[in-house]
Amino acid sequence: MLTYDFEKRGKQSLYEYLYNCIKEDILSGKIKAGEKLPSKREMAKNHSISVITVENAYAQLIVEGYIYTQEKKGYFASRISEQYIKNSLHNYIQTKENRPKNNKEKEYTKKQQANMKKDWLVDFNSNHIMYDNFPFSTWSRIMRQTLLDKENSFLTSPSPSGVLELREAIADHLSHFRGMDVDKDNIIIGAGTEYLYSIIVQLLGNDSVVAVEDPGYQKISKVYESHGVKCLHLPIDQSGVSAKALTGKKIDGVHISPSHHFPTGRVMPVSRRQHLLNWARENHGFIIEDDYDSEFRFSGRPIPPMAGMDSDHVIYMNTFSKTLAPSIRIAYMVLPDELMRKYNDELNFYSSTVSSFEQYTLANFISDGYYERHINRMRNYYRDYRNTIITAIKQSSIYSKVTIEEENAGLHFILGIKKKINDEKFKEILRKNSINISSVSDYCYNELEEFNHKFIINYSAVAKDKLTKALEIMNDALE
Amino acid sequence: MLTYDFEKRGKQSLYEYLYNCIKEDILSGKIKAGEKLPSKREMAKNHSISVITVENAYAQLIVEGYIYTQEKKGYFASRISEQYIKNSLHNYIQTKENRPKNNKEKEYTKKQQANMKKDWLVDFNSNHIMYDNFPFSTWSRIMRQTLLDKENSFLTSPSPSGVLELREAIADHLSHFRGMDVDKDNIIIGAGTEYLYSIIVQLLGNDSVVAVEDPGYQKISKVYESHGVKCLHLPIDQSGVSAKALTGKKIDGVHISPSHHFPTGRVMPVSRRQHLLNWARENHGFIIEDDYDSEFRFSGRPIPPMAGMDSDHVIYMNTFSKTLAPSIRIAYMVLPDELMRKYNDELNFYSSTVSSFEQYTLANFISDGYYERHINRMRNYYRDYRNTIITAIKQSSIYSKVTIEEENAGLHFILGIKKKINDEKFKEILRKNSINISSVSDYCYNELEEFNHKFIINYSAVAKDKLTKALEIMNDALE
Repeated sequence: MLTYDFEKRGKQSLYEYLYNCIKEDILSGKIKAGEKLPSKREMAKNHSISVITVENAYAQLIVEGYIYTQEKKGYFASRISEQYIKNSLHNYIQTKENRPKNNKEKEYTKKQQANMKKDWLVDFNSNHIMYDNFPFSTWSRIMRQTLLDKENSFLTSPSPSGVLELREAIADHLSHFRGMDVDKDNIIIGAGTEYLYSIIVQLLGNDSVVAVEDPGYQKISKVYESHGVKCLHLPIDQSGVSAKALTGKKIDGVHISPSHHFPTGRVMPVSRRQHLLNWARENHGFIIEDDYDSEFRFSGRPIPPMAGMDSDHVIYMNTFSKTLAPSIRIAYMVLPDELMRKYNDELNFYSSTVSSFEQYTLANFISDGYYERHINRMRNYYRDYRNTIITAIKQSSIYSKVTIEEENAGLHFILGIKKKINDEKFKEILRKNSINISSVSDYCYNELEEFNHKFIINYSAVAKDKLTKALEIMNDALE
Repeated sequence: MLTYDFEKRGKQSLYEYLYNCIKEDILSGKIKAGEKLPSKREMAKNHSISVITVENAYAQLIVEGYIYTQEKKGYFASRISEQYIKNSLHNYIQTKENRPKNNKEKEYTKKQQANMKKDWLVDFNSNHIMYDNFPFSTWSRIMRQTLLDKENSFLTSPSPSGVLELREAIADHLSHFRGMDVDKDNIIIGAGTEYLYSIIVQLLGNDSVVAVEDPGYQKISKVYESHGVKCLHLPIDQSGVSAKALTGKKIDGVHISPSHHFPTGRVMPVSRRQHLLNWARENHGFIIEDDYDSEFRFSGRPIPPMAGMDSDHVIYMNTFSKTLAPSIRIAYMVLPDELMRKYNDELNFYSSTVSSFEQYTLANFISDGYYERHINRMRNYYRDYRNTIITAIKQSSIYSKVTIEEENAGLHFILGIKKKINDEKFKEILRKNSINISSVSDYCYNELEEFNHKFIINYSAVAKDKLTKALEIMNDALE
């Protein structure tokens, strides 16, 4: 007869304790497979507990499959495999906390530590949105208002392509700001551009081929390749990727940033844009226009997007993570009618990846005019900041040895070194002196001579008072 | 000599107007490719505008590629292809608003209208989280607090796998609530389970094979298949998918909901769980344990998850969209060490898909104990609601013709019809009478006799006062 000491049950309820005791006895083999358990009444009487308690414990053991019942015969222990028992005990003894790390894990920890933020004198690799620049009180007020206004909407799933109000606000914004005539129903909201790339892969097909820019933002091809898509890295010239480079190859999409190429900052001229659009028309291909950074053009008008030239062959995309705050994971794309139909036919089952609450908040932020104001303020702020940095370079003794390129847009510009230095060595010397910097060649897939001796100056996180010192160190490294 | 009427410029600035005039003349062919433009000074003098204005317009035309400059020679119009010009004008004339819809679009519009919410008497297909049940004031207070506390974190990108505080809160929750010993570093936060499935595909490989349950939630296989993964639909028996069905096939993952199968509501007994785990160990496969709905078990203890039995072979996943509100797009998965290492090695480049702000808010909501309280309150609420619905069925004349199955967990149960009716016809009759209902066979990939005559009762959105009428209609339909 099974007897358990209910004094030892600690904080467990009577039924939980009984359930655990029987379960352990089955797992340890003390109760053998097929063995009959005491009837509920016997078990209750034997332990001076209620029949209900035993009933609950037995019911739980049944539902989890430890015991089974045969009508009018009683309760029996199930057959539990040896392997499971061994594993159960093994898991019990060796918990994660005290498990020694294996080599791969150690390596990983090391790698992580190496990637840890160093206390740089100057870090040309990072951009920073200053806290003072984010309209916190406005955002916070709109959030509260949204919560009150939209209580019920807050509790329903957003529509797959995003809440209507946000799509309308974006269409309106694109019309005013980018001169685009966009149907709100062609817009898809997603949790970041990377998520939207994966939707593009599903629209173009998993066996598709996407051409990307070389040099270029490597994450883009990583996302595509990670989805099984083949990436062609096409070298850019002064005008960007050429249509000639596409000819004769099976290519389904060309992913580019015509208004501000990363990292070179180059703008694709209208004739090259046409050539690419002609390629798209003739080959039933699509241009994926990543309009990242287009908001921050410091001189002249913003460059009109390719999507405005031919909305049938261009997938337009942009993100709010760059213009508002990196913590806000909201991006969007505008699909050509053909792909939008495909999306509605084949991918409409996806749930939206952005919470309705944040979508409504952003929609109000845009339609109340705060977004445009914020961008304008930030554009001025970055322009001033860029001017300070460039003035400091011009006043430094390094100026005669360098060129400043593509400084008219975005949060970075290029510092060209006139001397044919060893880029790797130069970066290494700077790093030893607490200056973090990347070269354009870091973003090259194929080694291309013309991109050597060019360095990327992300300026927005550079402390002005430390820059003079940093420029002196850089100048010394060029002696 | 080019002459433009600046009186016609409307709201445009002088430079914008000049830019547009020249651009249009180049596009229309009035200015031919290679044609020399007036010098800046000539142009300024001719229109009584400043040289700076002309300079700005020319600069913009250069950067966009409409004109080019030759040193000491002047400014020339670029060659713009015919095709582009035609398209430009075409786009200009035929805007989206007045473009007639094509057939596919018309079809789609029709489809959408059909899917529009009808004013059902009773809708057994939808679940509803009542507004009164969501702890709005608490959530709102925590949101405000989060905004104040975390201002700076709010402006930095969340770490790729999710903010630390939320991963810690989830690990803690899983330990208390699901008896799991989980390392916070094995947790990945994502914008909904569907997004996490796509990460799983990338971990298992785009050419992998995933077995899913038949019947089952079709969205799951849709997401996998949309990523190019092959899905095997394996019929379930009383205990779920069997290891035997997996034998001899190349299968990399088995996606199941062992604690509460959808739609049958069945619980996988421990012996079947072991068999599947043994299969995983022997074949280097993974179990994808979708623990959806496990929070709402109305009798007995929650069913322990498979991930607690063997964390090396089980990917555990769950979502907050079901327990909190569908508008909250936050899900998570716990990866086995092997896959977590692979993620860190190969997929660490992904940005988090959930805004830091919502992650911090949820982290505080969980760690302050509100999440557990909310689940407990909701469990009681749903239990009471289910009881009311079941009592109504028992008191209705339909009761002798039906069985109530798997009513002990989740937001739906199964209504079995004893008579061998035509399921499609039954649903059709009910729909005509404003009752929306699905059958288990709707979720079958292969037709399986044992799943006929079973209907899914999502009860949480059913208005109690309308249920009696609905049951009468259903009873009549069974005559």
